[in-house]
Amino acid sequence: MKGKVYLVGAGPGDPELLTLKALRVLCTAEAVLHDDLVASEILRLIPSAAQVLNVGKRCGEKKIVQEEINFLMVALADSGLRVVRLKGGDPLIFGRAGEEIEALRRADIPYEIVPGVTSALGAAAAAQIPLTHRRASSALVLITAHQALGSEAADWNKLAGSGATLVIYMPGRDYSAIVAKLKAAGVKDSTPCAVISRATTPEQRTHRTTLACLENAPRLAAPSLLVVGEVVRLADPVQSGQDFTLPVPSERGSELLTALFADFPSPLAHFTPNEEPIA
Amino acid sequence: MKGKVYLVGAGPGDPELLTLKALRVLCTAEAVLHDDLVASEILRLIPSAAQVLNVGKRCGEKKIVQEEINFLMVALADSGLRVVRLKGGDPLIFGRAGEEIEALRRADIPYEIVPGVTSALGAAAAAQIPLTHRRASSALVLITAHQALGSEAADWNKLAGSGATLVIYMPGRDYSAIVAKLKAAGVKDSTPCAVISRATTPEQRTHRTTLACLENAPRLAAPSLLVVGEVVRLADPVQSGQDFTLPVPSERGSELLTALFADFPSPLAHFTPNEEPIA
Repeated sequence: MKGKVYLVGAGPGDPELLTLKALRVLCTAEAVLHDDLVASEILRLIPSAAQVLNVGKRCGEKKIVQEEINFLMVALADSGLRVVRLKGGDPLIFGRAGEEIEALRRADIPYEIVPGVTSALGAAAAAQIPLTHRRASSALVLITAHQALGSEAADWNKLAGSGATLVIYMPGRDYSAIVAKLKAAGVKDSTPCAVISRATTPEQRTHRTTLACLENAPRLAAPSLLVVGEVVRLADPVQSGQDFTLPVPSERGSELLTALFADFPSPLAHFTPNEEPIA
Repeated sequence: MKGKVYLVGAGPGDPELLTLKALRVLCTAEAVLHDDLVASEILRLIPSAAQVLNVGKRCGEKKIVQEEINFLMVALADSGLRVVRLKGGDPLIFGRAGEEIEALRRADIPYEIVPGVTSALGAAAAAQIPLTHRRASSALVLITAHQALGSEAADWNKLAGSGATLVIYMPGRDYSAIVAKLKAAGVKDSTPCAVISRATTPEQRTHRTTLACLENAPRLAAPSLLVVGEVVRLADPVQSGQDFTLPVPSERGSELLTALFADFPSPLAHFTPNEEPIA
């Protein structure tokens, strides 16, 4: 009797952004192959009897190659186990789930995909950036820096030059090449950008700048995302030029603000979150 | 004492695709303004004492305009209530959350955004379409038909002609105009397309075709999504025409497997990874 494989999205970081379905599937798993990025609170949901293996490929070094992950997944399910392949974000976006699905089909293993909140959505929510907006952008492009810097320059030029909001996954920490590519595609120096590091976790850090100054952005910790487009301006009540006021931050928000301002002298440096809104 | 507004994504349809955070926020709501698309199982989670209003704008008729929603949201929170603005999918993608955020900021109302699984991810998971794939597409474009058919044709041409996977939200039921726009942008007749209707619900229907035949696709019920791109081919192992074989596991993979099973008696005990691939 064959088992089954669940390709499950763990969401962008905050364990509370797990879906109810992912929770149910995880709580009944007999084997789990998980990425590095999955929060420890989520991993603690796995039954203690389950076999658990970190197949993460981050930190520069590949501990295990994709073919090995495919092989393990198939072998575990073939032995009758209920296997969860747990991925950060959503499994179908930049997660190589396509290759895993192919391997499962070839081996005739039943499988199911449990979608998750992809990092772009988590980061945008945390940084309060509407990814689409009637006045600013009516399309969204998700892309990796690897693709942006790869050989298919024509495609990239079209995407970057389209005026859509760009969310660049895994931008790395040296933005000079990306900046050059964006400029070559016709993106203006004044276009607002945001680097969002460890979105939706207590270590979240956000840096807002423009394309002209992106190269000088602080090197925030991975995983991070780069958002490029006019919508980033809407994240910032101070720079928007409209009559905005900052929302009164929650307790957690205050901590984040304090942490943010500790390292980055900004116009908001003298802001005391619980007192007066900044107009 | 002011209340607070939570802009919450309810996910693509299946109530189990709600996040734990959305569940928590909803269960403590004092007022809820929700879209038409939210499942009744999710609406039943709202406390019975809460004020609930359907502010949905579907079915051709606008029951309530955006400015009225903004006004209600602000007024309810201003009276001290914990307000949930519950949206289908994710709030920051095609949900006009940008305008709602602006209204909340102007009124100095505290708010928080709870991201959700956007419809494209739910539909792709249900139809087993990897939205990105190493061999087929390394970027994803989310766009509405309204934008595709609007005046900003240059942008659309760039996006559609980029080779990225396109997910078109709210494509309507007459695809002729979209087909013409896609062809004009250089998308080939042979490009696979999928219409996914009521994704992740019991009424889900999927129709796969090519751009050449898209106009003749059956008129599936709203809400639906149109996915255009080579990745749609990967949804169907029968049509893929590729000669798949299981990868021969590397020695490292065998070691990992052995290590994994050494401590856990499992049905795989008699499996010798180096002999025969599992077919």
